[in-house]
Amino acid sequence: MDISEFDLIDSCFAPLSIGYDEAYALKNDAALISEHPDRSTVVTMDTLIAGVHFFITDPAEDIARKCLRVNLSDLAAMGAEAFAYTLSMAYNDNIDRQWVESFTSGLAADQKLFSVHLIGGDTVKTPGPLTITVTCFGHVPRHRCLKRNTALPGQDIWVSGTLGDAAAGLKILKGEASSSISEFRQNLIKRFRVPQPRTELGCYLLKDSISNTAMDISDGLLADLTHITKASRVGANIQEEDLPFSNAFNALMNQNKDLKTKLAVTGGDDYELLFTADRSQREKIIKLSSTLAIKLSRIGIVEKGDEVSLLRENGSLFQITNLGWKHF
Amino acid sequence: MDISEFDLIDSCFAPLSIGYDEAYALKNDAALISEHPDRSTVVTMDTLIAGVHFFITDPAEDIARKCLRVNLSDLAAMGAEAFAYTLSMAYNDNIDRQWVESFTSGLAADQKLFSVHLIGGDTVKTPGPLTITVTCFGHVPRHRCLKRNTALPGQDIWVSGTLGDAAAGLKILKGEASSSISEFRQNLIKRFRVPQPRTELGCYLLKDSISNTAMDISDGLLADLTHITKASRVGANIQEEDLPFSNAFNALMNQNKDLKTKLAVTGGDDYELLFTADRSQREKIIKLSSTLAIKLSRIGIVEKGDEVSLLRENGSLFQITNLGWKHF
Repeated sequence: MDISEFDLIDSCFAPLSIGYDEAYALKNDAALISEHPDRSTVVTMDTLIAGVHFFITDPAEDIARKCLRVNLSDLAAMGAEAFAYTLSMAYNDNIDRQWVESFTSGLAADQKLFSVHLIGGDTVKTPGPLTITVTCFGHVPRHRCLKRNTALPGQDIWVSGTLGDAAAGLKILKGEASSSISEFRQNLIKRFRVPQPRTELGCYLLKDSISNTAMDISDGLLADLTHITKASRVGANIQEEDLPFSNAFNALMNQNKDLKTKLAVTGGDDYELLFTADRSQREKIIKLSSTLAIKLSRIGIVEKGDEVSLLRENGSLFQITNLGWKHF
Repeated sequence: MDISEFDLIDSCFAPLSIGYDEAYALKNDAALISEHPDRSTVVTMDTLIAGVHFFITDPAEDIARKCLRVNLSDLAAMGAEAFAYTLSMAYNDNIDRQWVESFTSGLAADQKLFSVHLIGGDTVKTPGPLTITVTCFGHVPRHRCLKRNTALPGQDIWVSGTLGDAAAGLKILKGEASSSISEFRQNLIKRFRVPQPRTELGCYLLKDSISNTAMDISDGLLADLTHITKASRVGANIQEEDLPFSNAFNALMNQNKDLKTKLAVTGGDDYELLFTADRSQREKIIKLSSTLAIKLSRIGIVEKGDEVSLLRENGSLFQITNLGWKHF
């Protein structure tokens, strides 16, 4: 890229700060957040790297949206309402002005959708791959948030949306799977490229005291559930037959049911919300699902102990050897 | 590195959050900032890359401190008092656990020095060079901060500390300059590796209403002064003979006075504070210099117009063709 950092900031990034006065049009050394006294600011930070978290050949708009959305998903997992973010872009010689314009147009589209503003950041040149770090800001009622260490035995385990779609989309992009139905193929790829953070859901869970305990699924259902169970010093049983799948995922994976389940519970990049709630909240949750038009599935129970088990319909254990999710 | 991201966070990074309860020992998706109602939170973000902003052969402790301190310097330029930061580390195969331990021990040392805590972040593997992004948080009295667009004709231009040291240190590291005096050599290299953010000074400038206008010098005095003059729609005259130099810099550069001036005004990585103030503040500033034991030099005057000039002792213009500072 042969344009200067300052041109880039002025022409591409500064317009994204319009409407947030204390970002000073990105012309100062920093931005201000003047939080309402009844609230706490929530801060999260994620780095995404070309060739690791996305393909450099993905549309620039989609890369931008993924970088923002994985952070919005973290805020959702805290029950926070997002309002701003800072972005650092380490770009290399393969990135040109047109690419940056597409990238920032992706950000602009999501800013409208999620009511957030760019309030600062950095642009630097790197000899390495394109590397984007976003720090995202939301707010919660003062000192309150969803946590990981508050799950209690007997609580239901819930998950939003459907599982495995992004992992299946990645398999398609890598040529390891294919679907004859174009719409399904595109849906799965889209789920990998542009996750759907459950921002409203997270806020409702906290605000309506439906749940204390949530996280978003980035490393795979079982790996992330294990973060909750370890932090809460509990165990969990998940029922295989209750796992929620999309039609596209079903169509792609139905020929190998075991592989399907494995991908659904270990595949990452779902960015669905995993949360626990008392049985007494079931009705409220079903109503919330309808209000928000988000599928919410009860997939298991928090148990005493420290085991996380996935049970088949006949009650036998589904064996999973490796929980780890490597992006690619 | 063959240890998992979670081990690394637990063993190396989480201890850096001790004392900041709402970081939840880095075990949640995000941290909370519960700002005092009379204050605004200030947010800044900088990315530093091996081979661009530091040498991978620099001591890991120094790399850590530089990553933190360039952000503290941005907060100082806003008049903000730092209290927390998040850090994202994109590491590669050359980084081992011992390196990370040294890195975090550098952070720990600076946390004590500057009263800040690590409250969140990310660790990811990269096929590229080590890339560190820090987002740093400070506070200011609500809605107040030092800015760039408030300089007025007739005001004095001040700078803290000495100029050119870091640029000279970089020249020594690159073998482009040498000093026969070991102490001088080490001082200059140290200034490049571990900048000294003027945190207290920035807070005093704002709190005592000495100045409205400041920025930190990262791209070189003239380039950064130009950011102030453009934003404020003013010009500036700088007097060559008033530029402050260290003994080490003098000793290294005295054989070529023009090169010396050029390096001092275009060399980057000074991380000194540049600020403007009314003439009526001179006495207060001299007193502040003594209180904080920081050299503060009056180096020029804000002018009408839009020219930034560097004047020799005889009144002639010092010509500088290229203001830009490339780190290396």
